[in-house]
Amino acid sequence: MIYLDNSATTKPFDDVIDSYVKVSTSYFGNPSSLHGIGGQAEKLLSQSRTQIASLLHVKPQEIIFTSGGSEGNNFAIKGIALQYQNRGKHIITTSIEHPSVSEACKQLTDLGFEITYLPVDKNGVVSIESLKDEIREDTILVSIIHVNNEVGSIQPIEEIGRLLEKYPKIIYHVDHVQGIGKTYLDFHKAKLDLCTISGHKFNGLKGTGVLFVRQGVRIQSLISGGDQEMQKRAGTENVAGLVSLAKALRLTMEKRDEAIHHLTALKKAIIQSLLKMNGVKIHTPEDSSAPHIINFSIDGLKPEVFVHLLEEQEIYVSTTSACSSKKNEPSKTLLAMGVPEVEANSSIRISLSHESKMEEVPILINAIEIAIQKLQNVMGERNGI
Amino acid sequence: MIYLDNSATTKPFDDVIDSYVKVSTSYFGNPSSLHGIGGQAEKLLSQSRTQIASLLHVKPQEIIFTSGGSEGNNFAIKGIALQYQNRGKHIITTSIEHPSVSEACKQLTDLGFEITYLPVDKNGVVSIESLKDEIREDTILVSIIHVNNEVGSIQPIEEIGRLLEKYPKIIYHVDHVQGIGKTYLDFHKAKLDLCTISGHKFNGLKGTGVLFVRQGVRIQSLISGGDQEMQKRAGTENVAGLVSLAKALRLTMEKRDEAIHHLTALKKAIIQSLLKMNGVKIHTPEDSSAPHIINFSIDGLKPEVFVHLLEEQEIYVSTTSACSSKKNEPSKTLLAMGVPEVEANSSIRISLSHESKMEEVPILINAIEIAIQKLQNVMGERNGI
Ligand SMILES: Cc1ncc(COP(=O)(O)O)c(C=O)c1O
Ligand SMILES: Cc1ncc(COP(=O)(O)O)c(C=O)c1O
Repeated sequence: MIYLDNSATTKPFDDVIDSYVKVSTSYFGNPSSLHGIGGQAEKLLSQSRTQIASLLHVKPQEIIFTSGGSEGNNFAIKGIALQYQNRGKHIITTSIEHPSVSEACKQLTDLGFEITYLPVDKNGVVSIESLKDEIREDTILVSIIHVNNEVGSIQPIEEIGRLLEKYPKIIYHVDHVQGIGKTYLDFHKAKLDLCTISGHKFNGLKGTGVLFVRQGVRIQSLISGGDQEMQKRAGTENVAGLVSLAKALRLTMEKRDEAIHHLTALKKAIIQSLLKMNGVKIHTPEDSSAPHIINFSIDGLKPEVFVHLLEEQEIYVSTTSACSSKKNEPSKTLLAMGVPEVEANSSIRISLSHESKMEEVPILINAIEIAIQKLQNVMGERNGI
Repeated sequence: MIYLDNSATTKPFDDVIDSYVKVSTSYFGNPSSLHGIGGQAEKLLSQSRTQIASLLHVKPQEIIFTSGGSEGNNFAIKGIALQYQNRGKHIITTSIEHPSVSEACKQLTDLGFEITYLPVDKNGVVSIESLKDEIREDTILVSIIHVNNEVGSIQPIEEIGRLLEKYPKIIYHVDHVQGIGKTYLDFHKAKLDLCTISGHKFNGLKGTGVLFVRQGVRIQSLISGGDQEMQKRAGTENVAGLVSLAKALRLTMEKRDEAIHHLTALKKAIIQSLLKMNGVKIHTPEDSSAPHIINFSIDGLKPEVFVHLLEEQEIYVSTTSACSSKKNEPSKTLLAMGVPEVEANSSIRISLSHESKMEEVPILINAIEIAIQKLQNVMGERNGI
């Protein structure tokens, strides 16, 4: 089996599962309980928070545990909007966000917020100029995806941070879900106020994530109630989940340099081979794109059929993003990049893991060739050839 | 060790952890992915949803996975408030809710909602009359805790449901977090529109829960984005979490009759022994209270000190609820019941598990006597006696 759908989700590290089991079994207490069983859980929680903070070069009290990327993005956007609505009700984001950002913004329009969606160029990248032009007196939040989940384009997060420094009242949120472990992002240099990550995208467990909230930034809770997570996110803490996330993050960060190097080489090799095929168009931009995502389309190809043909050869890829793969809609990101609808409708996404192997590249390429051949034969038969 | 803090959290069943591990390891796919690895995960998800639905006697599409009780309560209250705000902005709840209900309501006042908190009698129970009196033209939601987490009092959920039937525009939500497995609640008979449960309170895993949303009830998402969970709760599904929750619920429901019978006997035995002690006051009402919670105070006793003295004998109990145990505030529920502040400030909660044993009762009682003795000695020394 060759699993190339790592942007949808990854296989958890064995060590991550082991930690989860150990904590769930032996440290099942409620960290808020006064007694020692609670105290042990509280200690693990706080150690994990410190470890995550140190891996991200931020402070422990800036790490808020969440149930994943979608909660983190909703929390950031709704929490800031409601906290600072008296300052203004204008939010700027991009036209290529993950739905957990764009839908959260859309919900806010019911509460009287106005949203500006920045366009992207043919490489799927926003321009600083257009952002500057859209900033208004009543802009309270700028939310930018770091690595786009469909094509892998990278936004100029640091440059945007430098621009926003001039507008101290604007809060800056970055969706770093696809970027973590596959790119470098310095939260301080980029002047981030908020940043979302999700455990299951870097070999952690589903149902775990972190929202970084810079000290000093006030935010309304999405989930309010008890005093957990610095009074920002209520609910009995998923101690085993946070411990497992700390472990996944440590293992990911330890191999990041090597992983980026390796992924870059793999991506290059795959793109080079794809480019030799007839009718293939690569949508992932050559520059400023993440090393693990390759988005392409093949003339006249039905992407669902193609995914299943590759599956027959035990290779698992995706049509656009996982969460819109069953909708049969053209890729929003590709449309925003100006890709014609017929291509935006038929794109395939390969997303690599640090565990992907160079030896798998020829197998993948061969499988793609066989799949195309099969499709052409079917179409040929249909056309009576 | 005798763990008697099961209202704070429970030890997961071994089988529950096993299921979680199996799914996380062998079925790690994203249920939204088109290929077979996604398909397997999707199948597990849908089987678990069906199983949970059948255990609760509701429809699979009425089961929305959440990260726990606090998310479920926030989702229910904020989601209904925002969905139906054009009908009215009045919400009725009780004065003895868990903070995840009362704080969610409080946040809504910023958006112009008005909240009525029903009083309770000395048994910690609301009256149907007072609810009736508070219903207004613009009331859109009634949210009632089933079993109170501090004293165990049970609200007349079915009776309230019958009353609310006459107000078809009012949505009815019940926080069933402490009730599940320890009481009987028929969602249909009680005419529930929404109902919150949380996995870790019935030997499931932290970070897992369910919000029941009756078919036909519309609700705004708390976490919006992808189309997961009937488009009501976005985010890559925590497949292993949902499978583990289904398993915990099945095991819990299988032993419910027996557990209730057993817990009732244990509770009776403990209360009888406590009543024989000097200066003990039982706050848990004799009737209409859950079988697993016993709340009491002892004259002049500092509850934190008492908890630690019991801990020296490897018995783990709690002061009030876990999430407010570190606040050193008097119990909100006891105050609402008219208990004097000095007692509300010094209450102890014992919360049993179906695994608690009758043989443990004399050990517990003996430990309490020793603890009281020690405290009296210390106080005697202080007073120079
Ligand atoms: C860029 C991006 N943001 C947010 C999310 C949401 O994360 P999760 O599935 O953990 O809710 C995803 C993945 O689905 C993503 O790719
Ligand atoms: C009655 C009640 N409701 C809601 C909750 C919140 O559940 P969770 O801790 O899973 O968020 C709790 C427990 O903390 C509770 O006892």
